[in-house]
Amino acid sequence: MVNWQNLDKLASFKELAVTKPACLVKEMTGENGAKRVREYSVKMAGGLVYNYAAKAVNDEILGILGKLAEEAQLTEKYEELYNGAVINTGEKRLVLHQLCRGQLGKDVIADGVNKSEFYNDQLKKINEFVEKVHNGEIVNEKGEKFTTAVQIGIGGSDLGPRAIYIALENWARKNGKLKMEAKFISNVDPDDAAAVLNATDLEHAIFVLVSKSGVTLETLTNEMFVKNALEKAGLDPSKHFVAVTSETSPLAKNEGYMAAFFMDDYIGGRYSSTSAVGGCILSLAFGPEVFACFLKGAHEMDKMAKEKDPLRNASMLDALIGVYERNVLGYESTAVLPYAQALARFPAHLQQLDMESNGKSVNRFGEAVDYVTGPVIFGEPGTNGQHSFYQLLHQGKTVIPMQFIGFRKSQLETDIEIEGSTSQAKLCANVAAQIVGFACGKADENPNKRFDGGRPSSIIVGDELTPAAVGALLAHFENKVMFQGFLWNVNSFDQEGVQLGKVLAKRVLAHDTDGALKEYSDLLNI
Amino acid sequence: MVNWQNLDKLASFKELAVTKPACLVKEMTGENGAKRVREYSVKMAGGLVYNYAAKAVNDEILGILGKLAEEAQLTEKYEELYNGAVINTGEKRLVLHQLCRGQLGKDVIADGVNKSEFYNDQLKKINEFVEKVHNGEIVNEKGEKFTTAVQIGIGGSDLGPRAIYIALENWARKNGKLKMEAKFISNVDPDDAAAVLNATDLEHAIFVLVSKSGVTLETLTNEMFVKNALEKAGLDPSKHFVAVTSETSPLAKNEGYMAAFFMDDYIGGRYSSTSAVGGCILSLAFGPEVFACFLKGAHEMDKMAKEKDPLRNASMLDALIGVYERNVLGYESTAVLPYAQALARFPAHLQQLDMESNGKSVNRFGEAVDYVTGPVIFGEPGTNGQHSFYQLLHQGKTVIPMQFIGFRKSQLETDIEIEGSTSQAKLCANVAAQIVGFACGKADENPNKRFDGGRPSSIIVGDELTPAAVGALLAHFENKVMFQGFLWNVNSFDQEGVQLGKVLAKRVLAHDTDGALKEYSDLLNI
Repeated sequence: MVNWQNLDKLASFKELAVTKPACLVKEMTGENGAKRVREYSVKMAGGLVYNYAAKAVNDEILGILGKLAEEAQLTEKYEELYNGAVINTGEKRLVLHQLCRGQLGKDVIADGVNKSEFYNDQLKKINEFVEKVHNGEIVNEKGEKFTTAVQIGIGGSDLGPRAIYIALENWARKNGKLKMEAKFISNVDPDDAAAVLNATDLEHAIFVLVSKSGVTLETLTNEMFVKNALEKAGLDPSKHFVAVTSETSPLAKNEGYMAAFFMDDYIGGRYSSTSAVGGCILSLAFGPEVFACFLKGAHEMDKMAKEKDPLRNASMLDALIGVYERNVLGYESTAVLPYAQALARFPAHLQQLDMESNGKSVNRFGEAVDYVTGPVIFGEPGTNGQHSFYQLLHQGKTVIPMQFIGFRKSQLETDIEIEGSTSQAKLCANVAAQIVGFACGKADENPNKRFDGGRPSSIIVGDELTPAAVGALLAHFENKVMFQGFLWNVNSFDQEGVQLGKVLAKRVLAHDTDGALKEYSDLLNI
Repeated sequence: MVNWQNLDKLASFKELAVTKPACLVKEMTGENGAKRVREYSVKMAGGLVYNYAAKAVNDEILGILGKLAEEAQLTEKYEELYNGAVINTGEKRLVLHQLCRGQLGKDVIADGVNKSEFYNDQLKKINEFVEKVHNGEIVNEKGEKFTTAVQIGIGGSDLGPRAIYIALENWARKNGKLKMEAKFISNVDPDDAAAVLNATDLEHAIFVLVSKSGVTLETLTNEMFVKNALEKAGLDPSKHFVAVTSETSPLAKNEGYMAAFFMDDYIGGRYSSTSAVGGCILSLAFGPEVFACFLKGAHEMDKMAKEKDPLRNASMLDALIGVYERNVLGYESTAVLPYAQALARFPAHLQQLDMESNGKSVNRFGEAVDYVTGPVIFGEPGTNGQHSFYQLLHQGKTVIPMQFIGFRKSQLETDIEIEGSTSQAKLCANVAAQIVGFACGKADENPNKRFDGGRPSSIIVGDELTPAAVGALLAHFENKVMFQGFLWNVNSFDQEGVQLGKVLAKRVLAHDTDGALKEYSDLLNI
């Protein structure tokens, strides 16, 4: 049986808090810096490595982080999770997103079924449907093939699948795997749906409606919005819609949809990209084989997360260093900086994944905790960010730890050599330069041109952004967030903080308001 | 003569620091809350108002902020700036972006010319060129009209113009003002340029190359990338390219371009959207009239920023409250949350504007300051964010002040009524609900469902997101950042923090590396 304890009760955390921090400038200068880059590196799945040479740690701190991992029973808690314990204490649910991509432990039986079989069955149903769409067995009213797939969903039903689609769209185009273009409608702002529909050939579009509960306000509103547009165009919505939902939702077994694919309560929205939520749209776009490679990358990473030694477990080590930065060094934010335009929306997905999971003030027993928890996550692709907010990262009063991501090869492999180097080489040169610049700084007589350094970062490096690499990246951050939740002793799988807004918005729409809420309603002319 | 002093030397700041903070939950509850929403409001240009009822201030704190504005001589410093003083002390330059949209004070003569006339002349040249493109006097090699304009630029030459284009694209479509589609290439990642070019009809495209210095690595690389693609397609690059640059750059008076439009050293990249940098691409896209409305909105806002009383000057008040939150209450980040999908990239522009301007550790004389300066800025459109990172904003351990933006009307006015309300009403109901939920919180026996409240926000409300409203929004935040720079006594107009990375990247590309930098180069296979 594992022992769920608050972080500040752990002896190894107390030891960590009084240990002298590493001097990053010193550590990263000269031959010692070179040695760190060679040695402070952990293999990941998908051909990736996690390199933490430029983090403010040294062998002593890493040793204590190892003790912390053991004392906090990170491996045992993960084992409980994948073997089907009720890890989501708030909602009293199992947490099974890893099972969508492969089994890690015992058979998990819930609601009278083997959940692995359930997820595999849904994936098989999706694959059968998708293949019929691609080969022209399932067609529109005129007997013509569908060419576009439009996901309607919000939050976890949008950010993850959208980020992954964008990550792989050019790769798929280059490799002849782009079966259908995918688009996304999420915001209840009518200008979102209207703009997407204006740019979509409705006659040849399949809409994938994604709502686990079947009652998400934005998603159902956008469903009606789209159905209305289809009808106006003389089309039959039931011939253009599929649903991804839970078996008990109003959307299941509903004649309004060509098909329904199921997820369940054991997969939170922000963890659902590898379930039917991502599976349907991504398989429509890229085909089932590509989606299978993506799942395999994620599953390989999940297996690596079982390793007890954090120095051989990238996700666990990343989690431990993050907690050290947040709770000992006092850093409040983390910047995610992919040097790959294809990962343009990956920071927005991580923002939800991390901030919604660990942005909590109570532990898993509902007791207030006395330490800070999840950080603010933000980021944009490099080199763009260099010409934007990096000024503050380099010379601001606040230290912001950074997570770089880089690849040796571009996806489209259309490149040009200028002044002796390709664009891809320039891209890679910039990320290498930034890491060293942030860590080591630069002396200057003019204080305005001085760089103090000591700004910690890690980098995940891969050969190319492939489906397996995207799967591994996704699972890495999911598992990092999970391990951090274990360390902070919070429930990373509920989101009670989103409820109050829903309740108040309903009151506004029912004109059941007083005080400030009534005044704001008037101001906005509701 | 104004007196440039550090914030912590000002008597009113010392007074502010020891004044009892307002209890936001109490302030916003009941009739007092309603009164605040009615009264804590300042008119802006473009039909907007700035409402700060849900900020953690009260009349006492506002009184001290008024004294701070006076003691820091905010109005006088602004006056010095627009009258042509060398406000950019680091680079010893004037700061004249406001002059692009209208004159605020005396004639500014620099480099032997009246700068207002210079900016107006450039705009006139752009308008003449744009009209010839639109009416078919300037055509491609085959005598056909151009249909697409592609901006090549990075940082300030990309983020602002791109955000504004996205903000107005649907408005223009609806109002018959979309003359040409605009696209943007920024990243040195070759997958960025390749993907844009794959989706562009090269034969009918004009490329707008934007680089003030004429030596920005990414931009010149992407220029060659595009010219190479044009040549491969049998097209003559000089018939497809215009340049926006400074008169002294290698791009000026160059036969490789159909035309060149000029900016100068007195307009920083992040402040350049209202100069030729935004003017060329936005006028090509929407026509000169729309761009003139946008400039007018910005100029009206600039004029309002001259008001001495912060309670009647939204940009100054926003700046003062921000400094109070950062330096007295200790909040490190600010979330920008537009309830308008059209403002999807506006937070990314503000991220550069704010973090690159005020992410500094030395004052304008190059001396280290002993207080924190610019915050981290991040954000995504609502309601999307509600299903993502709002969990942390509501229930996390860290308070993040928020800047909401909302409009009574949608841009496309395609809407549908479901359950008695339109999508636009639902959107507005959500932002009203969030403000009150964040401020007032909610008691609950279950600590996991408890909301402490006390999370401050302001909202900018308008009727509709028009060109004038976008101009006013842009200028509001520029002037807010300027006033905050005055308060922190930093130079908001240089960016020395971006230099180190450039130097080190060149060394990597020249293979002139050792230590950690060499190891990272090897890891990335450069």
